[in-house]
Amino acid sequence: MLLSKYFLPTRKDTSKDLVLTSHKLMVKAGLIKQISSGLYTMLPMGLKVLKKIENIVREELDSEGFHEMLMPTIQPAELWKESGRYQNYGLEMLKFKDRHGAELLYGPTAEEVATLIAKDIKSYKNLPCVLYNIQWKFRDEIRPRFALMRAREFLMMDSYSFDLTEEDAKITYNKHYDAYLRIFARLGLTAIPMQADTGEIGGDLSHEFHIIAESGESEIFYEQDLELLIDKIKTGEISSNLRENITKFYAKTEEKHNENKCQNLKIIKKRGIEVGHNFYFSTKYSSSMNFNVQDNKGNLINPFMGSYGIGIGRLMAAFVEASNDENGIIWHKNISPFDIHIVDLTKSQESKNQALKIYHTLKQNKFDVLIDETQDSAKEKFAKSNLIGIPYLLTISERLLEENSVEITERKTQNKNIIKIENITRNLMDKL
Amino acid sequence: MLLSKYFLPTRKDTSKDLVLTSHKLMVKAGLIKQISSGLYTMLPMGLKVLKKIENIVREELDSEGFHEMLMPTIQPAELWKESGRYQNYGLEMLKFKDRHGAELLYGPTAEEVATLIAKDIKSYKNLPCVLYNIQWKFRDEIRPRFALMRAREFLMMDSYSFDLTEEDAKITYNKHYDAYLRIFARLGLTAIPMQADTGEIGGDLSHEFHIIAESGESEIFYEQDLELLIDKIKTGEISSNLRENITKFYAKTEEKHNENKCQNLKIIKKRGIEVGHNFYFSTKYSSSMNFNVQDNKGNLINPFMGSYGIGIGRLMAAFVEASNDENGIIWHKNISPFDIHIVDLTKSQESKNQALKIYHTLKQNKFDVLIDETQDSAKEKFAKSNLIGIPYLLTISERLLEENSVEITERKTQNKNIIKIENITRNLMDKL
Repeated sequence: MLLSKYFLPTRKDTSKDLVLTSHKLMVKAGLIKQISSGLYTMLPMGLKVLKKIENIVREELDSEGFHEMLMPTIQPAELWKESGRYQNYGLEMLKFKDRHGAELLYGPTAEEVATLIAKDIKSYKNLPCVLYNIQWKFRDEIRPRFALMRAREFLMMDSYSFDLTEEDAKITYNKHYDAYLRIFARLGLTAIPMQADTGEIGGDLSHEFHIIAESGESEIFYEQDLELLIDKIKTGEISSNLRENITKFYAKTEEKHNENKCQNLKIIKKRGIEVGHNFYFSTKYSSSMNFNVQDNKGNLINPFMGSYGIGIGRLMAAFVEASNDENGIIWHKNISPFDIHIVDLTKSQESKNQALKIYHTLKQNKFDVLIDETQDSAKEKFAKSNLIGIPYLLTISERLLEENSVEITERKTQNKNIIKIENITRNLMDKL
Repeated sequence: MLLSKYFLPTRKDTSKDLVLTSHKLMVKAGLIKQISSGLYTMLPMGLKVLKKIENIVREELDSEGFHEMLMPTIQPAELWKESGRYQNYGLEMLKFKDRHGAELLYGPTAEEVATLIAKDIKSYKNLPCVLYNIQWKFRDEIRPRFALMRAREFLMMDSYSFDLTEEDAKITYNKHYDAYLRIFARLGLTAIPMQADTGEIGGDLSHEFHIIAESGESEIFYEQDLELLIDKIKTGEISSNLRENITKFYAKTEEKHNENKCQNLKIIKKRGIEVGHNFYFSTKYSSSMNFNVQDNKGNLINPFMGSYGIGIGRLMAAFVEASNDENGIIWHKNISPFDIHIVDLTKSQESKNQALKIYHTLKQNKFDVLIDETQDSAKEKFAKSNLIGIPYLLTISERLLEENSVEITERKTQNKNIIKIENITRNLMDKL
C-alpha cells in the first residue's frame, strides 16, 4: 500500500479526555474513529487488525470441529421471555419496538437464539454440537469508555455448546478452554484463566481470561508462578497438558476469591482486562425453552449447554494496552496490519523508483507492505512508523542505495541491521 | 466435512406460506433459519456461501484501490438531522432511544457516517478516496418477505466516494460500475445495468443492476440484445470496453422508462431483482454536512460524492432464484459451499475406509469436500446432494471400488463419468 493513497488519518495529539494509553494510541494511529458515545468505526488499518484477530479465533475454534454460523444482531423479545430473563437483564439491554409494535432488542448475547437454532437437532447422534458466531453485540453501558475496551456496540465471538450428558458437556467446555489458550498464545498475549462468577448468564462453572494491566477494570487473585507458566505457553516453551498444569494453580476473580482458602499460597492481587468468559450452565436454557433430543433409548432429554465469549474488539485494545512504548504501538507479527513498513527517504526520481521496486518485490513475495513515499520529513516518517508499530521497518536512503543496502529496524527492540538488497526477502522471511 | 458431524438441518418440506422458489430451497437445503419476521440466521453452510460472495465483492473493490473500513450498525440521529433527511426517511428507519434518552437508529444506509469519517481528509492530495464497508443494515419493511430477498436485517456492501471535481467523481462512479460487472460475472450471474431513479438518497445519476427473474419485484425495460451482451461478459467471451458497449443500449427501470424515447428500438419488458444500486449525488452531503478540503489553490471546496450498494444476502437469494431445477440448487463453483460432494454407498468397513481415504486425499489437495457417510439410503443421499447443489458429486460404491473407480456427476447437466481413483484429483482440478 502506498501511504499517499491510503486512508490513514493519524494524529499527533488526542483530546485531553482520553486517559487510557490504548485509547490514545488507537486514535493517534488512525485505527478507529468515534461516531458517537460508545460507537466506533474501524478505519481501514484498524479493520485489518480486527480481521486478523477474528481469523485466529475462527481457525482455533474450527480446528475443534465447532461450526460457524451467523445470527442476526436484532432478536425478538419473545425468546427472552421464554427463557425468563427478559425482565432481569436490566438497562444494558437496548430494547425497542418495530413499526408494528413488536418488541425487539439488540442482542447483548444470544443463548436464546442459539437454543432455537439447535432445536433442529432431534437425535443424540447429532451431539455434541457447537455453534459459534462472530457478530456485533450491543450493551447500553451507563458510561461507555476507553474506546473498544468498553464500547456499546462491540464485535464478539460467542459460542454455544450442546451435549447429551453433563460429562460430555464438561469435555466440550474444556475444548473451548484449550482453544482459548491457543488463541491468546498466537496473539502473543499472556491471558490468565480465572475461576469466575456466572452472573446473568447463570450456571455453575465459569472461567474468565484476563490480561494483566494496571488499567484493567477487574481485580484478580492468583499464584505468581501461574503467570510464568502462561508466558511459557505464549512462547511455545510448554505446549502439552496446558489445562492440567494451569488448573493446579489458584486463580480467581474478585467475586470468587476467598482469603481463607489460600492462606498457605503465595497469592498476588493484580488488575486484569477480561477478554474471554466461558460458562457451563447445564440445562438452564434447554429446559426453559423446551429443547430436547432423543437419547439412544428413545427417551427425551434436555441437552447440557455452555456458552463462551471472546471480545474481539476488546482483545485488540487489550493488546495495544499490553504492547506499546512511549513512541507507539508494538504489534505482534500475527496481527500487525502490515508485515513491513518502508520509509523512503530518497529525493531523486531514480532512487524513488528503486524504492518502489523493492516494495513491489516484497509484495510479489506475499508480504503485506506499507510504503511511506510521501513528502513528509524523515522525522515525521519515523515518528509515524513508530506510532503505527509494524514489526519491521525498512529504511531506504540514497546513501544506503549507493551501497546496494537498506536498513531493517525491529520495532520492538529498535535493533538495526544493514542488509544487501538482494537479501531483503530472505531476511524478512526468516523474521516473519 | 463429514456430514454426520455437520450442522446441516435439511428439510423435505417447507411451510405452505413459502411461495418463492429460492426461499423454499434455502430453507430446505439448511442454509438459513428464520428467527422472527425478516430476521434470519445464516446456518453454517449458508454462511460459507455468503462469505464467498462477500469475498468476491471485496476483491473486486480492493482491486480498484478502494479502502474497506467498518462502520457501526447503530448511528446517532443527530447526523441525519445535520444532513436533513432524518424526518423524511419514513417508517423503514428503525429509531429508538438509549438509556440516557439519546436518539439512535439502526443504519439503513450510511452516507452521513461515511461523510463524517471522510472529514479527516483536508487536502486535494488525498482525493480521490473511496471508503466501503460490508455491514448489517436494517430497514423496517412493512411486509418482510421472501427471506433474504427482502429481510429486515440484511448484509450490504455500501461504498462512498469523495472526489475533487465532478469529472473525477464520474470516473470513480464508473470504476464502481466496472467493478460490479466483474463481480456479477464472477458469480455467474446475468445482472443488467439500468438507468434508475435516485429516490431517497438523492442526486442526478443512478444505475440499478437487475437479475432477470419472474419473481422480481421491479419492472425493467431494455433492448433484448443487451441481455446477450451481458451473457457474453459472464462467460468471458467479451472482456474489454464493457461499459462503453453496454451503455449504447436502452435499459431503464420503470421510474425512468419513457415510451416516447424508445419508439424505434426493440424494447422488452421483464421483471428484475435489484442486486446493486449506485448513485452520484454531487455535493449534497458534503455541503449539508460542511465537509470541505483545500484544492491546489488553497480554496475550500465540497467534495463530489457518490454511494454504491450491493445486497450480499439478496445476491445469494437471487442466485438461487436464477440457478435451480426441480431437484434443488445449482451452485456456481465460485460460490458453492463445498467444491465436491461425496456420496458413500458402501457397506463394509474396508470400503468405507477406502471412501474416507479418497475424501482425505481430496482435502489434502485443497478441495473443500462434504462426504455423506451417514446411514441414510442411497435415494435419500442423492436427493440431498441434488438439493444442496454442489457442482460435482462423487459417488463411491462397492461395485465401483472393485474396478478402482468412482463416478463423477456434474450437478448442472447430470452428466456422469466413471473415472479411475488415481485420476480423481487431476480430473477435478480441471473442472474446478
